[in-house]
Amino acid sequence: MENTLYSIDGKIVPESEALIPVTDRGFLYGDGLFETLHAYGQTIFRFDAHLKRLAHGASELHFNPPPDLKQLKRWTHELVAHAKFPEANVRLTVTRGSGPRGPSIKGPLAQRVILTITKFDRPPEVRFTQGVTAIVGSFRRQESAATAKLKTLNYIEQILAKREADEVGVDEAILLNNAGVVCEGSASNIALVRDGILRVPDPERVGALPGIAMLTAIEAAKSLKIPVSLTLLSPWDLHQSDEGFLSGSMRELTPLVQVNGRAVGTGKPGEITRKIIQRFRQIIEKETKPFKYPY
Amino acid sequence: MENTLYSIDGKIVPESEALIPVTDRGFLYGDGLFETLHAYGQTIFRFDAHLKRLAHGASELHFNPPPDLKQLKRWTHELVAHAKFPEANVRLTVTRGSGPRGPSIKGPLAQRVILTITKFDRPPEVRFTQGVTAIVGSFRRQESAATAKLKTLNYIEQILAKREADEVGVDEAILLNNAGVVCEGSASNIALVRDGILRVPDPERVGALPGIAMLTAIEAAKSLKIPVSLTLLSPWDLHQSDEGFLSGSMRELTPLVQVNGRAVGTGKPGEITRKIIQRFRQIIEKETKPFKYPY
Repeated sequence: MENTLYSIDGKIVPESEALIPVTDRGFLYGDGLFETLHAYGQTIFRFDAHLKRLAHGASELHFNPPPDLKQLKRWTHELVAHAKFPEANVRLTVTRGSGPRGPSIKGPLAQRVILTITKFDRPPEVRFTQGVTAIVGSFRRQESAATAKLKTLNYIEQILAKREADEVGVDEAILLNNAGVVCEGSASNIALVRDGILRVPDPERVGALPGIAMLTAIEAAKSLKIPVSLTLLSPWDLHQSDEGFLSGSMRELTPLVQVNGRAVGTGKPGEITRKIIQRFRQIIEKETKPFKYPY
Repeated sequence: MENTLYSIDGKIVPESEALIPVTDRGFLYGDGLFETLHAYGQTIFRFDAHLKRLAHGASELHFNPPPDLKQLKRWTHELVAHAKFPEANVRLTVTRGSGPRGPSIKGPLAQRVILTITKFDRPPEVRFTQGVTAIVGSFRRQESAATAKLKTLNYIEQILAKREADEVGVDEAILLNNAGVVCEGSASNIALVRDGILRVPDPERVGALPGIAMLTAIEAAKSLKIPVSLTLLSPWDLHQSDEGFLSGSMRELTPLVQVNGRAVGTGKPGEITRKIIQRFRQIIEKETKPFKYPY
């Protein structure tokens, strides 16, 4: 069995047939959206929240008609059931489709739906017990951009940020926005803890993607009676906090212990972070039964 | 004969075979670059300048190895020769290729080269004698973005700007940058004329794509002893100038006679613009013999 399977417009195909026409606007202009889904066994965690975010993006990009969410759901579940991976990463991509030459959007186009499912190899527990490191990226996200807060196929900034992190051997690059406040990582959201309060950059104000894993982390914190503040964080806060963590659908929650070579808090995963991770995993197990964490 | 032909990695293929794998990073992340070339007969105007711009973009995106420009040139000329269109639009796209899952750039990847040639139907002369209209788009380009000044596959902003123009029935949307100065159109550069001076937003300072048609227009102006200023233009300048025009490889130079419903200068194509267009056409005819303008 292959470790990656493909579905094009609802049809499960081998890799050799996982192709799209070069006239597709997703390819020509990055004119499309995607979601990265985490399947725990046969259950996709918070699939409806991902679909809602996709629908919002499609509306912002004036997709006409709006994507058929029921169909997306059915096709995705069919692929997950077919693959039978114990844990998997599913990339759901919807493009505006093929149209006449040029950037103008002319008439309703037939959107294309591309699904890729990849067997997920769970990282070793040490990643969570020792935490990860990051740098602040060298360029800024534009909070007022038409594509801010959306998960579009225009992803070069994230690629270049991730490359900066790879170059220096850290896990992630955190980007500030034009206003100079902490926005988001190349493929993660960030949260800091200070004086017992979980402080999260407000996605709406800083122009970050509203991460579904971070929303879950906030839920976890609230259920533990940890106060949560959706706020603005400066680069200064990165070095003045007691704890921090990064979130993402695939990475889940990973403690952040170093930024730009300087320790976050004690330089070890914090106590509040540890509690939030524990509760986060309980939420996932509850919603994805019979999935059980190996640690 | 079809009006559009395709070439994938140097192989001329029918539309049914003009496909790319869904693992291509150009599709997944818009991780690629393109150029829009104008073939006059068998000659691509200023092909070397386009290739130089592409190579610069590839360097900025850390393409490794750099694209093979000689090969790109050969493949493009083969397609142009095969198509035999009297005039054509050639889109040359180079993607980073397929790699392991995720945004990280791992190891040298095999870049993909996609060429599309479309028969160019020259617009009626009235477009040049009456001029075109524009609006100022509702959002801003980020001059400090890592993708500013590059022609990448991340093109959603241009699509959304063009859509705004289409919605109100004008030809183009001109975008300001974050500093509030005039940057570029969705698929064009802009120049204004005041007191006999051609004033062009300095691409380096405003974060605009350095347009090859605009560089040619500047050459044309200089050869006519019209003073040229690479400068910063405010929205105010749009309404305080005597003349204006838009440039692009396909549109060439079109007089701009109205912005946001208000006349530019007299609301008719200006005299200096007319002279620059005439000289621009002479330059093209000289470099693309035996091509002759129909007007």
